[in-house]
Amino acid sequence: MAVENRTPVTVIGLGLMGQALAGAFLKAGHPTTVWNRSAEKAADLVSEGAVLAPSAEDAVKASGLVVLCVTDYDVVHTVLDPLSGELSGKTLVNLTSGHSEGARETAEWAAKLGAAYLDGAIMAIPPVIGTEHAVLLYAGSKEVYDANESALQAVAPAGTTHLGEDHGLASLYDVALLGIMWGVLNSFLHGAALLGAANVKASTFAPFANNWIGAVTNFVTAYAGQIDEGDFTAHDATIDTHLATMIHLIHESEATGISPELPEFVKALTDRAVAAGQNGLSYAAMIDQFRKPSK
Amino acid sequence: MAVENRTPVTVIGLGLMGQALAGAFLKAGHPTTVWNRSAEKAADLVSEGAVLAPSAEDAVKASGLVVLCVTDYDVVHTVLDPLSGELSGKTLVNLTSGHSEGARETAEWAAKLGAAYLDGAIMAIPPVIGTEHAVLLYAGSKEVYDANESALQAVAPAGTTHLGEDHGLASLYDVALLGIMWGVLNSFLHGAALLGAANVKASTFAPFANNWIGAVTNFVTAYAGQIDEGDFTAHDATIDTHLATMIHLIHESEATGISPELPEFVKALTDRAVAAGQNGLSYAAMIDQFRKPSK
Repeated sequence: MAVENRTPVTVIGLGLMGQALAGAFLKAGHPTTVWNRSAEKAADLVSEGAVLAPSAEDAVKASGLVVLCVTDYDVVHTVLDPLSGELSGKTLVNLTSGHSEGARETAEWAAKLGAAYLDGAIMAIPPVIGTEHAVLLYAGSKEVYDANESALQAVAPAGTTHLGEDHGLASLYDVALLGIMWGVLNSFLHGAALLGAANVKASTFAPFANNWIGAVTNFVTAYAGQIDEGDFTAHDATIDTHLATMIHLIHESEATGISPELPEFVKALTDRAVAAGQNGLSYAAMIDQFRKPSK
Repeated sequence: MAVENRTPVTVIGLGLMGQALAGAFLKAGHPTTVWNRSAEKAADLVSEGAVLAPSAEDAVKASGLVVLCVTDYDVVHTVLDPLSGELSGKTLVNLTSGHSEGARETAEWAAKLGAAYLDGAIMAIPPVIGTEHAVLLYAGSKEVYDANESALQAVAPAGTTHLGEDHGLASLYDVALLGIMWGVLNSFLHGAALLGAANVKASTFAPFANNWIGAVTNFVTAYAGQIDEGDFTAHDATIDTHLATMIHLIHESEATGISPELPEFVKALTDRAVAAGQNGLSYAAMIDQFRKPSK
């Protein structure tokens, strides 16, 4: 139900995520207008109090704050380009997944039309939207962010964050964080395969993995400091010591009959650091292997 | 200072880790005997109350509980083989890094000599030993573990854990957990390189990374359950959805001028899952890519 003084919000795009976003705005008392190419996706939201706009134009006209959550940036432009005369004075919040260049270009395009623009990244799955576990990251003008933060907190009460003025940052954080997700998941799956071969269940291994991952976040913090300082003195283990243990993991993988491919990839990166004379340094010095454009 | 009724402990091998272990036993009040090939490493421990044994034989004779922390399993045998007549009735706790076969062989060897044997893995760096952050994992007879747990808690008051009866498990957990560490660190370093190219400091990115890693541990728990059940229904994102975002990360890496090698490796694994018809499944189904012995 709409609460007095809550900013009216329009949500364009009602996939699972768009529906979750609109539902969270509704729940927080924002007068909420929705629009989707196929209107039937709005049914549940309408029964909860959302207004289904008959056209994208009506949807944009209904609110000062327009949230976009569609398939890609091309769809953003397909929907909004015909309405460019309606966008002056609006705040567009684009939560569509895309590339940093697309975000920067869309910000310039919006600026020419007199619209404020924030690019955002959703680090959460739809069921988590509106809860304290939701994290949404925003990039663009701090002033625009500050003016809209309280409305945006409807979808991420504890995790609404401004990253910086560069509109490309939301996409970059998004993919960098997803990369870390695959890093965790693949190495966990490899470990679960290794221990599975010794009759250990994945759910027996998982709490050990997660507890250890908690310890590893301390290394992340420490190594981040070393990267910023450019000081790669080894305070724990040297790259050489890591390399010796990587060879153990490859050996155990081969001996157990599972794929050694992941630790072999990790070792190949580390071999290059050793070849570059970094063997006595902190593992943080391995960032050089990622900064290089070519192999 | 030794406390009445505390189990006497011998620590063989006084590298940084062995010194930390002996120091923790001493601090917890265990009469502690130490031995190292080069005796000068014992100096600090002796000043804290440890007894330096004049020979490995004397060191083994001094305590019922003998902890080994040396370079590798060959050194374990070099030190203990000449003393095989002295080992009956002893409990050997081998914290030396090695392979699971080495652990199983050493357990058989000890059993023939009438010695109880636990193989252990130290998931901690030396400064953490003796604190609540230390994690030490043990494999071997539960009965032997139970009889020695309280003494072993001197080095890991909150993190002393029995993994199972298979003596190989400590080495397997050890390398599987280290694999997860490299998974986290490499993907963080790649992300830090990507964001670094957009002028974001590594220590600005690190808290986002660590917060997100906390969220990812929930996926680990959920996927572990799916692996054990063999039910890979996608409750969050499908492998196809992951693949689309991997392509974004490769694109951003190339556009930014950093190495796309890590996400390309991840994508290649995922392409294989798609080729195997797993595109609509949960990411947990990717375990098949690690279970296979060959590429």
